[in-house]
Amino acid sequence: MIQITLIQIDNYGPWTVTPGPRHEPDLQTLQSRLYGDLEREFGAHGGIVFFNRFDNLIAISNGMDYEDHLLIQDSIRNRYPITISMGIGTAKTAFEAQKIATEMIQKGGGAQNAERKEILNIDSLADKEDGEVRIAHIDIDDITNTLTDIKTAFDTSIEVYKVLYMLMDELSEVGSMCFFIGGDNYMAPVNNVSEEELQKVLDNIYEKTGIHLKAGIGIGKKALKAADLADIGLEEIRAKKTDSSILVLKDN
Amino acid sequence: MIQITLIQIDNYGPWTVTPGPRHEPDLQTLQSRLYGDLEREFGAHGGIVFFNRFDNLIAISNGMDYEDHLLIQDSIRNRYPITISMGIGTAKTAFEAQKIATEMIQKGGGAQNAERKEILNIDSLADKEDGEVRIAHIDIDDITNTLTDIKTAFDTSIEVYKVLYMLMDELSEVGSMCFFIGGDNYMAPVNNVSEEELQKVLDNIYEKTGIHLKAGIGIGKKALKAADLADIGLEEIRAKKTDSSILVLKDN
Amino acid sequence: MIQITLIQIDNYGPWTVTPGPRHEPDLQTLQSRLYGDLEREFGAHGGIVFFNRFDNLIAISNGMDYEDHLLIQDSIRNRYPITISMGIGTAKTAFEAQKIATEMIQKGGGAQNAERKEILNIDSLADKEDGEVRIAHIDIDDITNTLTDIKTAFDTSIEVYKVLYMLMDELSEVGSMCFFIGGDNYMAPVNNVSEEELQKVLDNIYEKTGIHLKAGIGIGKKALKAADLADIGLEEIRAKKTDSSILVLKDN
Amino acid sequence: MIQITLIQIDNYGPWTVTPGPRHEPDLQTLQSRLYGDLEREFGAHGGIVFFNRFDNLIAISNGMDYEDHLLIQDSIRNRYPITISMGIGTAKTAFEAQKIATEMIQKGGGAQNAERKEILNIDSLADKEDGEVRIAHIDIDDITNTLTDIKTAFDTSIEVYKVLYMLMDELSEVGSMCFFIGGDNYMAPVNNVSEEELQKVLDNIYEKTGIHLKAGIGIGKKALKAADLADIGLEEIRAKKTDSSILVLKDN
Repeated sequence: MIQITLIQIDNYGPWTVTPGPRHEPDLQTLQSRLYGDLEREFGAHGGIVFFNRFDNLIAISNGMDYEDHLLIQDSIRNRYPITISMGIGTAKTAFEAQKIATEMIQKGGGAQNAERKEILNIDSLADKEDGEVRIAHIDIDDITNTLTDIKTAFDTSIEVYKVLYMLMDELSEVGSMCFFIGGDNYMAPVNNVSEEELQKVLDNIYEKTGIHLKAGIGIGKKALKAADLADIGLEEIRAKKTDSSILVLKDN
Repeated sequence: MIQITLIQIDNYGPWTVTPGPRHEPDLQTLQSRLYGDLEREFGAHGGIVFFNRFDNLIAISNGMDYEDHLLIQDSIRNRYPITISMGIGTAKTAFEAQKIATEMIQKGGGAQNAERKEILNIDSLADKEDGEVRIAHIDIDDITNTLTDIKTAFDTSIEVYKVLYMLMDELSEVGSMCFFIGGDNYMAPVNNVSEEELQKVLDNIYEKTGIHLKAGIGIGKKALKAADLADIGLEEIRAKKTDSSILVLKDN
Repeated sequence: MIQITLIQIDNYGPWTVTPGPRHEPDLQTLQSRLYGDLEREFGAHGGIVFFNRFDNLIAISNGMDYEDHLLIQDSIRNRYPITISMGIGTAKTAFEAQKIATEMIQKGGGAQNAERKEILNIDSLADKEDGEVRIAHIDIDDITNTLTDIKTAFDTSIEVYKVLYMLMDELSEVGSMCFFIGGDNYMAPVNNVSEEELQKVLDNIYEKTGIHLKAGIGIGKKALKAADLADIGLEEIRAKKTDSSILVLKDN
Repeated sequence: MIQITLIQIDNYGPWTVTPGPRHEPDLQTLQSRLYGDLEREFGAHGGIVFFNRFDNLIAISNGMDYEDHLLIQDSIRNRYPITISMGIGTAKTAFEAQKIATEMIQKGGGAQNAERKEILNIDSLADKEDGEVRIAHIDIDDITNTLTDIKTAFDTSIEVYKVLYMLMDELSEVGSMCFFIGGDNYMAPVNNVSEEELQKVLDNIYEKTGIHLKAGIGIGKKALKAADLADIGLEEIRAKKTDSSILVLKDN
């Protein structure tokens, strides 16, 4: 079971333009700081946060309970001009878990409802011992030589974001999600997604775009461990220690 | 003329896996902190930075010279475990300027060349008095009611990223670029892109997706001012002060 | 028993002037960021960090074990141009615990020994259940009206730092330490220091300086809880809910 | 003439305990982040900020005008739960300049007056061309071998803070101020303070404490340049390139 926390800035849209529009570099800084801080807060407990849309961030939070989340919610209120709401869901797939997490927030009120503030609703928590997180770390084969060093920076970005959109779209169909983590790297929580299903997604994208993708998959009790193993898997594929474009490593 | 700075982390890919893969939450924090810090450094001079791919960031830097960039490069070296290279180009369109900026970095060596370090190559600078920055701030009509509050968080994200990819692709065809700035917001430097061309892009996306977009355009000597005006333009469309889905405001 | 972690930047002095002196604003930023980040990392586990001398920081770390510290050490290496060593000691008084923590680092080598890097030596850990942290939060009576609003900013600072030095000096004699936490506030871990001993220190300082001090003392299993209670105690004295200038609150 | 900006968090004390006391690690993080951010904002214009008491920070701001300060004030409001007021004074000595800066803030209202918010009062600005900043970077001779590596961490801190208090007290008498900048380092803006006066202060402290101090002095149009030269001066004394314990370097 994978545990997903959806983090939503309360009433953010209206705040950004009250009393008048706030300077965009300030908002960008605010959002990146918030993302970085949440990454540390969840990271300190073995979790991972993805920036997603910056005002709606998604974390894998296996091993974290109500008190851990409350401390984070307090900390943001004490250091930022905004507050956050959180919904927590647990399910067999990451997509299903975020669906539940979304409902946990939505039942507290709308995202631009000035009354709604600091919701912290938990549907269920993953068992600390029996929970399991599966993470795929996906990247583009040899992007430096095929894109970065020969195309313009923005042309490379278009390719990277095209692949991102396709991964988001196709992986959501098999119960996963996908997030951009910088460079040519993507991360997808793949609980209950088979290697075959993932391979099919990578194949589809290759057919449509000509871009080769590979994926290391890590399995652990918490996101941090799973991600570490996924990275190692990716390195082993890169080093040609396997012929496959997918490699699974499990913590024991 | 718009001045674009391309910022590239030196030899980043290899560093992230040396001696072994580094914890992903640490890398995500590093990247978000770097982005936030660069936003402040450029922002202090009236510029704006877009995170783009986090290891390749793109800034609108009108008004900033060699010394300003050097101070930033030093500051990053003194506070981070990595260093950055920068290329600067100026042109009639943002796309052309980033192309030149890319070449300025590429001629210093490849992105994963361990020898290449702290390149700072300027092709040309925009005139401080005669330079002009045009920025479009684009967003999705009423996303809170049509998506955020009724769909799952990730389903909304898929829509937002689909629009992002389309905007990146189509705007690059008319000499612009496009960046995600969080929520349902996009920002595009649109020097030498006509209102008609932009309207056509928004129309195309509506036809393909059914999603309504609107855009405030701001014109100023520096990015900060242009972005402020773009925000105000967007607010005025939102408040129905105009029938058009595009509004242009110019600093005088 | 109180558990103290001493955090020392490895070989920091030489680094700040290699190859030449680095810009002071960059170093100040580095130090403040490191302090803030360590505060989050320890804070996420109920600990507190005091900046002390910025290159030597002191934390109350009851409840944290080897793995928790290792994750922090990794995180700093992955995001900063410097690394940190840590020594951990547990004792009846905070002063004794920091003495042991210092020895744990010193036995790894000197602070400016280029060979010494990322020491993580634990003498002993406090029992997670039986450990206890006592914290005094001390401040100056009515500083706003007696100093801030009538004297120059720097004259007020001289008074605040005079009191700081005196508190450091006198409290170290009774087995405590004292740290400046901003404004006119000081924090002292006072395990095994009696109320009478603390009152005597406050009285001595009043006699020498004419400055009235008061102190809330909190007792909890972890530093965060103890500090929360100390703050509440201070508020109650301020609100005249007690005649004493010291108030003790205990978590139960 | 040296230009000093006093930065004061508006109504901070009351905020920290409303509605109840806020977690101390959160406040410490807030303060360190604010300090780091202000350091970047002023640093981007060649200035330097000293944390002083964290809720009252002091900057050397030669070269910065009203617009520069306003952008900083906006940025803090947009990213923090608190706002700041600033007073700016210019004088022959740093102490006199901060006195004027303090008055500029005080005339806007008291530090804990809930009505007072975002004051930005300038008495006068230093001439951008004729202004001059003199900075002394002072440190303790060979602290690693005499203190850090043989005494406990806190015993070393007591010595460092004793020297700090003495420097603050004695330098204020000759028109300067003094700030702790970490480790065993102090920085003092010494416009119109003669080498003889500074030497006398260092001698007095040696007589009272047995601690040897040395000082590099840098002179430049802005604080950043002056501080760079002060650092180089200190390095030259350390390298025995001079017999004196004070060395002055001037930008030309």
